[in-house]
Amino acid sequence: MKKEDLLSAHRRIQPYIHRTPVLTCQTLDALSGATLFFKCENFQKMGAFKMRGAANAILQLSEGARQNGVATHSSGNFAQALSLAAKMLGVKAYIVMPSNSPEVKKAAVRDYGGEIIECEPTLQAREDTLQNVVNRTGATFIHPFNDDNVILGQGTAALELLEEIPDLDYIISPVGGGGLLGGTALAARFFSSGTIVTAAEPFGADDAWQSKQAGHIIPQTNPQTIADGLRTSLGDKTFPLVRDHVEAIIRVEEQEIVEALRLLMERMKIVVEPSGAVALAALLREKDKFSGQRIGIILSGGNVDLKTLGGLFS
Amino acid sequence: MKKEDLLSAHRRIQPYIHRTPVLTCQTLDALSGATLFFKCENFQKMGAFKMRGAANAILQLSEGARQNGVATHSSGNFAQALSLAAKMLGVKAYIVMPSNSPEVKKAAVRDYGGEIIECEPTLQAREDTLQNVVNRTGATFIHPFNDDNVILGQGTAALELLEEIPDLDYIISPVGGGGLLGGTALAARFFSSGTIVTAAEPFGADDAWQSKQAGHIIPQTNPQTIADGLRTSLGDKTFPLVRDHVEAIIRVEEQEIVEALRLLMERMKIVVEPSGAVALAALLREKDKFSGQRIGIILSGGNVDLKTLGGLFS
Repeated sequence: MKKEDLLSAHRRIQPYIHRTPVLTCQTLDALSGATLFFKCENFQKMGAFKMRGAANAILQLSEGARQNGVATHSSGNFAQALSLAAKMLGVKAYIVMPSNSPEVKKAAVRDYGGEIIECEPTLQAREDTLQNVVNRTGATFIHPFNDDNVILGQGTAALELLEEIPDLDYIISPVGGGGLLGGTALAARFFSSGTIVTAAEPFGADDAWQSKQAGHIIPQTNPQTIADGLRTSLGDKTFPLVRDHVEAIIRVEEQEIVEALRLLMERMKIVVEPSGAVALAALLREKDKFSGQRIGIILSGGNVDLKTLGGLFS
Repeated sequence: MKKEDLLSAHRRIQPYIHRTPVLTCQTLDALSGATLFFKCENFQKMGAFKMRGAANAILQLSEGARQNGVATHSSGNFAQALSLAAKMLGVKAYIVMPSNSPEVKKAAVRDYGGEIIECEPTLQAREDTLQNVVNRTGATFIHPFNDDNVILGQGTAALELLEEIPDLDYIISPVGGGGLLGGTALAARFFSSGTIVTAAEPFGADDAWQSKQAGHIIPQTNPQTIADGLRTSLGDKTFPLVRDHVEAIIRVEEQEIVEALRLLMERMKIVVEPSGAVALAALLREKDKFSGQRIGIILSGGNVDLKTLGGLFS
């Protein structure tokens, strides 16, 4: 993937996404001892950065392929993102979801026009069901993160951040499957080679940290974290980017994620989902490392169930 | 009060306040059938519009008066606003607070440098204690809302809104003591005479509605609402503005306030305090009235205890 690919992706998706604001907060600067720039993908259409990659992937399909629709498996933000991006482009979206997915997530996919195909909550059932859908409809499978066009799309968030704030010392991004982190690493490499990309991950789902240590992919098993967007494993297209272009992965405790959420809500007055607060939690955990520097923090999404959120602070 | 007074107030306070953003939301436009422009005073310094009036009032004092400090009685946002504005201007702030005020509110005042003088939680004790402070220190009493300079300061929020969005059909503002509403009414009269100003108030603290109906001030007794910023009564400087320049007062149920909060958090991803969500609740209650029109909505503040907030959605 080249610099021009990322710029093309950005031009391509612009009509379908928000250019999200970069916010600052004096209180959090004082608290951290660094100068922070928050890229607010919680304000993105559909509430998360996943819109970027979903739109870019569909826009790269031929007219013929679009007519047969797109398919994915996801019970999270990518399901909603693909549904909405498909709807905006007049394309049919088939979403394979485990039958035990929360009703609120199913409703969100339906609201965005996605067609849900339920499956048993096992990896095998998910893959079989997806294959059946693809065979039956001719839809193109779009992977939630292990796809170059998705990675490029996600990288446009960091591209916009670097356009506005060109001299960042670090960008901290959360890592789940590695689409956002991989895209961020590409954006920094192409457009701001002096900016170091650091990742943030919960201790309870630290497959990216383990994989980077080991030098090969170690899949996530039995993740335990409130950051539900970060429970997935890296893929073979994202792992090399994490291995080669990410400086370090900072792991955080669950309580540090809750504290970061609290600061974002109390001080910045914004709603961020637990996964989206993990980069701030990492910064606060390693204050000394970042002290006195200019740090970009990607707030990756804001889709949180208020009941869950209420439970964290009650 | 004249047009030039409001413009001067705005110029005067500009170094001490944020020019808060005006946000839009396609989902809420679709839900309401109107085109909405949210003036986000939840992002104001200290978390609420009260910064504007507090700064303006202190800036209007003579150098000599500033040396003796300022004093007020408040357990809410005005206590914090006066403390912070005073601190920024190198002025001492004395805050009379009932002894049963929540510790979190006392801590916030202290954080902003205000000196707390506790009193028994009665109106008489509050006034006696304030008088003692003024006698002892020579501080100037600044009323939280019943003060022309405070009213003008609060009116600068609507002034900014009208500068950015000049052709609003309505502005909806919450009403407690009437400082924000009165200032909003002045801003509309001076700068956008075609814009109708409407107020929003909880049924459980509907003294403004009752006062407007009666044609004279009817004090609030025993208010019952989660919108804690709206429990106060109108004053003799704010009532005439409400009587003469506010089209109507829409009352809302508690559940409607919670629903408005939910929409602001789930759809706009922003944190607003219950008082700050009342204008949106009023709009949604009277959709037909506002349908198809361009509506400014003042989100007055974002200082909410997360424990309380969590309780509303659990």
